[in-house]
Amino acid sequence: MNPLTTVLSLPVSDPQKTTDFYRDGLGLDTEGVEDGIVAFELPNLSIFFIEATEYGKYLQQSGQNIGQYPAPGASIISCAFATPGEIDEVLTKAVAAGGSADPAEDVDDSYMGYFADPDGYVWELVANEHTARAAAAE
Amino acid sequence: MNPLTTVLSLPVSDPQKTTDFYRDGLGLDTEGVEDGIVAFELPNLSIFFIEATEYGKYLQQSGQNIGQYPAPGASIISCAFATPGEIDEVLTKAVAAGGSADPAEDVDDSYMGYFADPDGYVWELVANEHTARAAAAE
Repeated sequence: MNPLTTVLSLPVSDPQKTTDFYRDGLGLDTEGVEDGIVAFELPNLSIFFIEATEYGKYLQQSGQNIGQYPAPGASIISCAFATPGEIDEVLTKAVAAGGSADPAEDVDDSYMGYFADPDGYVWELVANEHTARAAAAE
Repeated sequence: MNPLTTVLSLPVSDPQKTTDFYRDGLGLDTEGVEDGIVAFELPNLSIFFIEATEYGKYLQQSGQNIGQYPAPGASIISCAFATPGEIDEVLTKAVAAGGSADPAEDVDDSYMGYFADPDGYVWELVANEHTARAAAAE
């Protein structure tokens, strides 16, 4: 299996609210909501947040059962950062924009933080020696 | 928010079974299971499939509620292919390896197929003029 590229789709209650959170709150770039979908491009990840009813239609085409959704704990999106300071900044912005987060902490040799977006989707933010080296090498 | 890179984590019942399916069945490269995790690198997507109990521990660090998981319908991973023939091949392999799939179909101007892996995770496979052009331009 050799796909050209990939996209992750996740159902949300209100794509405009999702846009407000990720674009206005966290500063991610997007062209906004179209046909119930808002798309964000991150390094090594493209995400389509799709209004839940629309999402259900896509999923039905797959012939799979539609479980309970949104299912916030069903996936974790992890992001590597160069510095702990960037993580603190993201968490502050996430809370200000209506998400939820606890302060980041040192876990083993990493600085780690988590936030949940308005639908409860979990993001994990990591900075450590390895990510700092990766950033310096870019 | 400017992460260096991203990883998607999904819980699975048995990482070895997941390895058998994606590596031996679909031909994706991996170093196999380590600490309950099996990692696959696709174009524009890194996935960690994590044994559900281990996954629950990660998720708990986020302070979020752990819903019912695995939650197969909670996400869709879409892959673009250059040709319909590649999609048919993936679907055949997916079924042979213990996944489930119906034959692909023409939907609007695209050739589309879906398969579910042994945990029920849904993959959408797409080929159309746009993906063919993207492949030719590479």
